[in-house]
Amino acid sequence: MASESGKLWGGRFVGAVDPIMEKFNASIAYDRHLWEVDVQGSKAYSRGLEKAGLLTKAEMDQILHGLDKVAEEWAQGTFKLSPNDEDIHTANERRLKELIGETAGKLHTGRSRNDQVVTDLRLWMRQTCSTLSGLLWELIRTMVDRAEAERDVLFPGYTHLQRAQPIRWSHWILSHAVALTRDSERLLEVRKRINVLPLGSGAIAGNPLGVDRELLQAELNFGAITLNSMDATSERDFVAEFLFWASLCMTHLSRMAEDLILYCTKEFSFVQLSDAYSTGSSLMPQKKNPDSLELIRSKAGRVFGREDKEAVFEVSDTMSAVLQVATGVISTLQIHRENMGQALSPDMLATDLAYYLVRKGMPFRQAHEASGKAVFMAETKGVALNQLSLQELQTISPLFSGDVSCVWDYGHSVEQYGALGGTACSSVDWQIRQVRALLQAQQA
Amino acid sequence: MASESGKLWGGRFVGAVDPIMEKFNASIAYDRHLWEVDVQGSKAYSRGLEKAGLLTKAEMDQILHGLDKVAEEWAQGTFKLSPNDEDIHTANERRLKELIGETAGKLHTGRSRNDQVVTDLRLWMRQTCSTLSGLLWELIRTMVDRAEAERDVLFPGYTHLQRAQPIRWSHWILSHAVALTRDSERLLEVRKRINVLPLGSGAIAGNPLGVDRELLQAELNFGAITLNSMDATSERDFVAEFLFWASLCMTHLSRMAEDLILYCTKEFSFVQLSDAYSTGSSLMPQKKNPDSLELIRSKAGRVFGREDKEAVFEVSDTMSAVLQVATGVISTLQIHRENMGQALSPDMLATDLAYYLVRKGMPFRQAHEASGKAVFMAETKGVALNQLSLQELQTISPLFSGDVSCVWDYGHSVEQYGALGGTACSSVDWQIRQVRALLQAQQA
Amino acid sequence: MASESGKLWGGRFVGAVDPIMEKFNASIAYDRHLWEVDVQGSKAYSRGLEKAGLLTKAEMDQILHGLDKVAEEWAQGTFKLSPNDEDIHTANERRLKELIGETAGKLHTGRSRNDQVVTDLRLWMRQTCSTLSGLLWELIRTMVDRAEAERDVLFPGYTHLQRAQPIRWSHWILSHAVALTRDSERLLEVRKRINVLPLGSGAIAGNPLGVDRELLQAELNFGAITLNSMDATSERDFVAEFLFWASLCMTHLSRMAEDLILYCTKEFSFVQLSDAYSTGSSLMPQKKNPDSLELIRSKAGRVFGREDKEAVFEVSDTMSAVLQVATGVISTLQIHRENMGQALSPDMLATDLAYYLVRKGMPFRQAHEASGKAVFMAETKGVALNQLSLQELQTISPLFSGDVSCVWDYGHSVEQYGALGGTACSSVDWQIRQVRALLQAQQA
Amino acid sequence: MASESGKLWGGRFVGAVDPIMEKFNASIAYDRHLWEVDVQGSKAYSRGLEKAGLLTKAEMDQILHGLDKVAEEWAQGTFKLSPNDEDIHTANERRLKELIGETAGKLHTGRSRNDQVVTDLRLWMRQTCSTLSGLLWELIRTMVDRAEAERDVLFPGYTHLQRAQPIRWSHWILSHAVALTRDSERLLEVRKRINVLPLGSGAIAGNPLGVDRELLQAELNFGAITLNSMDATSERDFVAEFLFWASLCMTHLSRMAEDLILYCTKEFSFVQLSDAYSTGSSLMPQKKNPDSLELIRSKAGRVFGREDKEAVFEVSDTMSAVLQVATGVISTLQIHRENMGQALSPDMLATDLAYYLVRKGMPFRQAHEASGKAVFMAETKGVALNQLSLQELQTISPLFSGDVSCVWDYGHSVEQYGALGGTACSSVDWQIRQVRALLQAQQA
Repeated sequence: MASESGKLWGGRFVGAVDPIMEKFNASIAYDRHLWEVDVQGSKAYSRGLEKAGLLTKAEMDQILHGLDKVAEEWAQGTFKLSPNDEDIHTANERRLKELIGETAGKLHTGRSRNDQVVTDLRLWMRQTCSTLSGLLWELIRTMVDRAEAERDVLFPGYTHLQRAQPIRWSHWILSHAVALTRDSERLLEVRKRINVLPLGSGAIAGNPLGVDRELLQAELNFGAITLNSMDATSERDFVAEFLFWASLCMTHLSRMAEDLILYCTKEFSFVQLSDAYSTGSSLMPQKKNPDSLELIRSKAGRVFGREDKEAVFEVSDTMSAVLQVATGVISTLQIHRENMGQALSPDMLATDLAYYLVRKGMPFRQAHEASGKAVFMAETKGVALNQLSLQELQTISPLFSGDVSCVWDYGHSVEQYGALGGTACSSVDWQIRQVRALLQAQQA
Repeated sequence: MASESGKLWGGRFVGAVDPIMEKFNASIAYDRHLWEVDVQGSKAYSRGLEKAGLLTKAEMDQILHGLDKVAEEWAQGTFKLSPNDEDIHTANERRLKELIGETAGKLHTGRSRNDQVVTDLRLWMRQTCSTLSGLLWELIRTMVDRAEAERDVLFPGYTHLQRAQPIRWSHWILSHAVALTRDSERLLEVRKRINVLPLGSGAIAGNPLGVDRELLQAELNFGAITLNSMDATSERDFVAEFLFWASLCMTHLSRMAEDLILYCTKEFSFVQLSDAYSTGSSLMPQKKNPDSLELIRSKAGRVFGREDKEAVFEVSDTMSAVLQVATGVISTLQIHRENMGQALSPDMLATDLAYYLVRKGMPFRQAHEASGKAVFMAETKGVALNQLSLQELQTISPLFSGDVSCVWDYGHSVEQYGALGGTACSSVDWQIRQVRALLQAQQA
Repeated sequence: MASESGKLWGGRFVGAVDPIMEKFNASIAYDRHLWEVDVQGSKAYSRGLEKAGLLTKAEMDQILHGLDKVAEEWAQGTFKLSPNDEDIHTANERRLKELIGETAGKLHTGRSRNDQVVTDLRLWMRQTCSTLSGLLWELIRTMVDRAEAERDVLFPGYTHLQRAQPIRWSHWILSHAVALTRDSERLLEVRKRINVLPLGSGAIAGNPLGVDRELLQAELNFGAITLNSMDATSERDFVAEFLFWASLCMTHLSRMAEDLILYCTKEFSFVQLSDAYSTGSSLMPQKKNPDSLELIRSKAGRVFGREDKEAVFEVSDTMSAVLQVATGVISTLQIHRENMGQALSPDMLATDLAYYLVRKGMPFRQAHEASGKAVFMAETKGVALNQLSLQELQTISPLFSGDVSCVWDYGHSVEQYGALGGTACSSVDWQIRQVRALLQAQQA
Repeated sequence: MASESGKLWGGRFVGAVDPIMEKFNASIAYDRHLWEVDVQGSKAYSRGLEKAGLLTKAEMDQILHGLDKVAEEWAQGTFKLSPNDEDIHTANERRLKELIGETAGKLHTGRSRNDQVVTDLRLWMRQTCSTLSGLLWELIRTMVDRAEAERDVLFPGYTHLQRAQPIRWSHWILSHAVALTRDSERLLEVRKRINVLPLGSGAIAGNPLGVDRELLQAELNFGAITLNSMDATSERDFVAEFLFWASLCMTHLSRMAEDLILYCTKEFSFVQLSDAYSTGSSLMPQKKNPDSLELIRSKAGRVFGREDKEAVFEVSDTMSAVLQVATGVISTLQIHRENMGQALSPDMLATDLAYYLVRKGMPFRQAHEASGKAVFMAETKGVALNQLSLQELQTISPLFSGDVSCVWDYGHSVEQYGALGGTACSSVDWQIRQVRALLQAQQA
């Protein structure tokens, strides 16, 4: 008889279940991550049942004690799954019954599986968010420290992968660190919406047995209580939000990795990865591949568009590894200051040349065109932009005079960008202070 | 010469541009939505240039006046696009130059196109968020009002599309309204991150001409200033966040629509759509299709996975239409109370039967099994669950006695679910109060 | 020294590798599926090396023998992974070396890891496609058999979930079977593009050692040879194609499941799932949930948008399980003929009523409107459409006469649809023959 | 009365339709692309009606003539949409009625809107596939011609963006051309499944009026007839297949564009884009951005994950533009042979150094390690790999002797890769012949 198999809905079934179907339905392979929070949730619920008079004090103590035993077995790696354990909840209750007998059957009174699943998931994800927040802060801190230490290094800023303007290396680091502070802020918001108690919602109509949900909230330290029992058991907005958070964060890490992969090429040669974050080729002996960066980049794809509970576990692991690898990469990266400096070229100062004319009173659109003509003239003559003679420049505009030579100084160029958020030293310092203040505020 | 074509980078190109390429690159078809905020942003920037000494007061006034003229032409529908206007920014500046002459060429001093594009987009999306918030509140309010008015109607709650437990119709409405309150909360968070000033970031290195970004912030009423110029011009997190917000909100509306489509079938017959939200068939004269609901459901697919600026405009329009149609549908929906009542059947009280035994002291797992046996016995005998005789029930458990007849009352069943979030009248009232309080708090 | 760790690129690294990074990079957890094809590929390659003079006959025999040993260990479950085995290829070669010594180091001559990975993957997927083809054929055959056996059962056809026209139950089954025949056709096309030999492409430039790729093709029984070595090692079109194939196939199964979930509801009650494909509720004793169908439906989401090698293994398993469960569901499904018949209602013949007028010479658009008026009249009077009197109908059109009574016969209605593809008996028989012919042709 | 509004389901509605809902439901904005095929389909259907005796010859002629008039108006741009035209099908029939009167009302006899929509869409997409095939062939041909002409140019092949082995420039071109030949093959398969007649399927049950579907097939020149009327009107596999085809093809173009973007950087400087495919910066006068390539790359994102009819039109336009721009880019691209040659460096011959030892009898794994040690020694000494003295090499392995100097020749290195698919001249020629043969076969 089916009821002997110990299935939760044992009473009425007469046919056997197709074994492929059974395996198909089982989630134990991935939801074992939940063992600890499942015990935690059941302990709180048994206190709720006791307060509602559905368990005696003695029964509650027996259950609490049994659940501690179950937890101990998991912690010590001695918990044995049985083939009929289709999920972590069934497994734990089955084991509880073996340990304390029939009283175990009272634990599920008024609680539905959905109730339990979603409570466990919220407890687990709340903890995960805290862990990931810590790792993210560590990464940002590493980046800001590095930005502060290497503020004097200039190199080319690129748009469309073409050299655009000279910037500070720190400015580049901070552009990525600032993006990560938004991820950090969002993660706190997601955590706030995760931290809501669903337990006490039953299958759909609510809990009919007088369980005090405020007691459950206090026991499990939730920030709020779900408003509607149907919504509470079915909604997974917080899962979607977490996965979206991971997508955006991975997008940021992926972009940083993409830049660094380029900067590691022979052709750019701006930075060098530590051997700890590189791998070789099974065929070509000279190869040193930036595999850590490629993995960070490729993991972004793994995070997008997942929507299930399994995804939460996998994505959490991915995020945890990626954040640590990224921290390792950034902290061990070696930069080649000379190559960076040599990559700056006079045509990157064409904007400054235009501003030179603007300062002499020419409208910007005309100045832009005049500077463009200078670039074209230099290209045509096969010389660098700063090698055009004053006479040559004056064929383009009579506003050019001897002081144009002051334009050709990268350090001076960079120092002009003193508006908030720019690449001047003072502005980079301001950014460092802002990001540090944000980190402190978020950790509070 | 290429510079005569009026392209922004006129000076140095000598070849002509492939016309397919040009069309390919143009965004004017969809970014004309931005005309108003583009003028707004340019007006603020010209004030910034004046303060920095790059425009005289007279030049600034000339530009401000010209921009007002441009806005007027758009507002009156008399603005004429020229074939060379590749985007709204080019178009407005081209027109400004026609109106006020060479001074127009000073407006772009120190500003990059990226600067301008992202400022305009943030201004536009900030306004859109406010509009959508209002529409969302209107929908939630309609739902809560309806929930309050029809609190006495009971009907089946379903899980897995199988009848599960009797619930209040209001409980169903509120389960969807509560989901929408989360969307409303999230939209405010997204708006907060949209409401940050990027202007003054230049192409990549920042603004070198002493433009006061705090003045720009005040002029455009932004809540904060972007921290890093590279990040400011390239990041589109807020676009992704907005689209994700729309995805989640559409998912909620889509689920509600899916339920209502079912409730509209001949087989369920719980509700009837207003003719204003139905359409017919070109072939079958008797058909009345719930097209409004199907469109709400299908639009969800349109929102997922978009990532570009075009998507923002399209998704905004979709959300605006969907929210209004949903409000219309809910406010005109007719419910069939009798059909709802008749759909309640005694087997939906099987959980109550188990609780009856629990209250007599049987552990829940055993009670669940006993109740399951009763369901099986009734099915086997071909009678309703409440038609089993006491003797028959006692063959399953001796705990059954005469008072079991009290179980078979749907109203009584529903009233048991008095824990917070449940379907009892008091709990539904609590939900209504909570949602109303949330709405008020968010509107503040 | 790093080279002692046995890493493939041992020679030049001096730093140690971050262990998180190492774990991050390892694929052994999922690519162990490939053990058999990896041995197969290596055996073929060693024959290629021997022909090219890079192995002596004796060395080749030693390698072949060693590889057979490796395969034997895998088959018997005695193969022991070592912590340094980062993927299946490393693991097998490491073991080979333990078994036969230094000669193992000659096996990889001129072969790159990419070469090997992509060859293995193609071999594995070729086999998987054949298996899945067989399962798909089995499902289609079951459906066609059922369609043939139950051809006389009529029930409502729905559009927009509203009752549309009477159709045969077999017509519904065949609509899904026909969709699956397209999947079957597509799977053969995908297999054709999988069945192309990449081995002999090296890392990027090709094979420089005179390995005869036509010999490799013959050894591994591939249908063709890749044209370009760079493309051969990097392209994964066939993975994307396979995953897309799975998406479409799952969409079809998902739609069938969605219909059946509805037909299983209390409200529709057209079919009943076997207990072997149902599950219960942990809370509500009366519940019998169509979990098999819901899983089929939900698995569709798991298949979409994956893009990596891991996805191939997971999706293959999913497809295999889903096809078997679907076959089980269809073959054990019980139908309720009476409920089906009772669900047919006269308004579903409104189209026939319009055709009645068309046959009397009225243009269809007018006939559609006249029939619509009859529906409205019946609704207003609260009677069934076939209960309107002749006089009442004649107020709508004088073309109605006594023979209108012939319209109200569902069997007759269905038999009209005799054009190819319709729901008349002859047309359903034609469909059955067509699908069977397709199956035979594809299996050939 | 509602019927006066001309809605197709005029007869029974009494309420007015919410105008937002109406706009929401309308598709005319994008399905006007279908005007020509809609007329074509209606002309064929009227011939079917005539053969079935539902139209007289005179009525058919009147309809055919009227439809030609409708087409003429569209072709000449004089067709006027009315506000009630919700889609192209309604619009054309409305206009037909204005032109020829009540007989127009007979055209829709036995046809449903779904019937008509899906027939039109298949006709349109069949034509689109042919057009896109032509453009794709043109692109491949351009690439192959270029590959043939520049076969003597060597440059670095990269893996992980690190220099790997010397290859021919033609080998790189062909790696992309070969990928595109698969797209071309797939497009033909998609077209085959598009080219199936659905007309004659009615709403769901089929066509009850004796319309000869084989006549319709012949009139519209379809390759086959749909098997089941329910499947015929609802399935959109061919849309999904087309969009997937576009995704894969865009992925290939996107990868090629990504390589070229890199090769255009100052740091690589291998190629130079024609001005016709570049744009400048509104701020920085010296910039010349590879916008054509960036657009090709970014358009890939636009193609993924769309699923609706609107997507088909948009994706078709995108593909058409992208293929033409790509052809333009490739045919006007200028290569810098000297830079390419200078980018080859001796460490890229480390694999050849290992093969040198293999040829002397050392197992490859040992040879790989020995070569790796040579690379490390050269790096440590700060010299190029080919500058290590024979004595130095002999400290690594006694197998090194004077003939090792022959290794340091890039041309010789490349010529080793003579296996099919490799980068040797003979193999590149073979690839060119193979791709040309494929093109010819596909065009046949």
